[in-house]
Amino acid sequence: MHIGFIGLGRMGFPMAQCLLNAGFELTVYNRTSSKATPLLNAGARLANSPLETISPGGIVITMVSDDQVLEETLSEKFCQTLGKDGVHLSMSTLSLEIARKLSARQQQYGNHYVAAPVFGPPAAAAEKKLWICLSGNEEAKMRTMPILEVMSQGIYDFGVEPTAATLVKLTGNFMIQSALEAMSEGLTLAEKHGLDQKQVMGMLTDTIFACAPYKNYGKKIAEKRFDEVSFSLSLAAKDNRLVREAAAEKQLSMPLAQLVQEHFQAGLDKQRGELDMTAIALKSLESAGLAGKEGTNS
Amino acid sequence: MHIGFIGLGRMGFPMAQCLLNAGFELTVYNRTSSKATPLLNAGARLANSPLETISPGGIVITMVSDDQVLEETLSEKFCQTLGKDGVHLSMSTLSLEIARKLSARQQQYGNHYVAAPVFGPPAAAAEKKLWICLSGNEEAKMRTMPILEVMSQGIYDFGVEPTAATLVKLTGNFMIQSALEAMSEGLTLAEKHGLDQKQVMGMLTDTIFACAPYKNYGKKIAEKRFDEVSFSLSLAAKDNRLVREAAAEKQLSMPLAQLVQEHFQAGLDKQRGELDMTAIALKSLESAGLAGKEGTNS
Repeated sequence: MHIGFIGLGRMGFPMAQCLLNAGFELTVYNRTSSKATPLLNAGARLANSPLETISPGGIVITMVSDDQVLEETLSEKFCQTLGKDGVHLSMSTLSLEIARKLSARQQQYGNHYVAAPVFGPPAAAAEKKLWICLSGNEEAKMRTMPILEVMSQGIYDFGVEPTAATLVKLTGNFMIQSALEAMSEGLTLAEKHGLDQKQVMGMLTDTIFACAPYKNYGKKIAEKRFDEVSFSLSLAAKDNRLVREAAAEKQLSMPLAQLVQEHFQAGLDKQRGELDMTAIALKSLESAGLAGKEGTNS
Repeated sequence: MHIGFIGLGRMGFPMAQCLLNAGFELTVYNRTSSKATPLLNAGARLANSPLETISPGGIVITMVSDDQVLEETLSEKFCQTLGKDGVHLSMSTLSLEIARKLSARQQQYGNHYVAAPVFGPPAAAAEKKLWICLSGNEEAKMRTMPILEVMSQGIYDFGVEPTAATLVKLTGNFMIQSALEAMSEGLTLAEKHGLDQKQVMGMLTDTIFACAPYKNYGKKIAEKRFDEVSFSLSLAAKDNRLVREAAAEKQLSMPLAQLVQEHFQAGLDKQRGELDMTAIALKSLESAGLAGKEGTNS
């Protein structure tokens, strides 16, 4: 099966590699084309534009960093070329608004928009261990299954609405970000009272919080390894904005999302956008006079 | 080995039962003595006052609902009777202040204060699956080990300070409460956009949040079973206060702890103290116009 693949960033690259290893025929596009080199050596074809990734009526995957990039990519011309029964497998974390807009645009040309955002760090993508939220047209989803299955350890179907899977992803990301803030405040309290953050977090993730976000990010917070980036603070701040926009659409107040936003913003204000999102903890550490003690590059 | 056991509430009762089953000789005290009946049938002795639970130089366990009850229990007379090398195994969730105060009081009489607060629901106590945070005098801790081991699946030692284990417990409880607020806001957002809370939470706890607080409390929130109490909202509000007091001791600000407090308080104001602590979700649900739809008794 031939697939177009657009976006070879921190997540996109290992996903594309995974598909190549599974025997899919890939045509890849990335704005910085040099990133594609290892994939070309493994048999992928290089496209010089998003349009060139398309086989009419085929499947194109996008894994890009934000709404705007995706909207520019999925031009009218793109949709027209993708044509009848073409599938856009949209795996980025996006706004609900762009999911609706692109879905509508694609419909005009007989394409299908299938939302399939993923949970899991880049390492999970390389190891076929992503978790995938899925929604969209039933037949189109069926066609994408063989692709999704080789990248994931679980696929969860949330129906036909193009926004549904995206909303589940945003909800999960919001819960992860909230956990970061909780760990930041909690571990700062523990350290301020003379305890070792690593020992406290070690116990908690051995016991009640034995799950990935606490284990991975908790360890990073406790060890203050904020410059070891698995997901940047600036991208986390973007996801937080998408969550608050989804809430605003329904006139919902989400005070915890708002609190996390303020702390991400404090990080952005201090030029920490390219640190790991766990650098949200520097807010708590600094107000406690505990920042910059080990491993922080602030 | 003879043990005194004070406090047969939701946690204390199954813990005492567990010790009896393991062959310990127990003298139990509870303000409402009728609660002890099943234990007496299983071989425990009933004390008519806390003092009567004591074997001089022995071990007395307390599992009571708050600081004040414990302070009244651990009177000067009590400490004097417990005497030289007597051990008070303090398993409740308490303030740091009372841990310091009772530890100092006991020292005057040659007793040891060993802090051993626990994580896990009442069911875990019955099934010997508690997680225990431990701190205090080394020899006294050694003596309590056979007792703690029959109730738990893991014991974590945080040194000699009487406050250390209590602080770890407070930190963990704070993280759990923060997770409740995150699930409340996140699932309200999902429902408001037409998704099924149960399906969303089901996916998240199958995948990234596959750990007890999310599985147990997340399910309860998604199913709106706030009247099925495993830990009451009023006790959770008390723990939240203890966390904020521990922060205030060090002039720390914990904005997320503060936010959770406001939402617990909103629940208390609406006479929801005896509901489960997951009833914090009613705050989000009500502001979204989604409360009272299924299973809520509000």
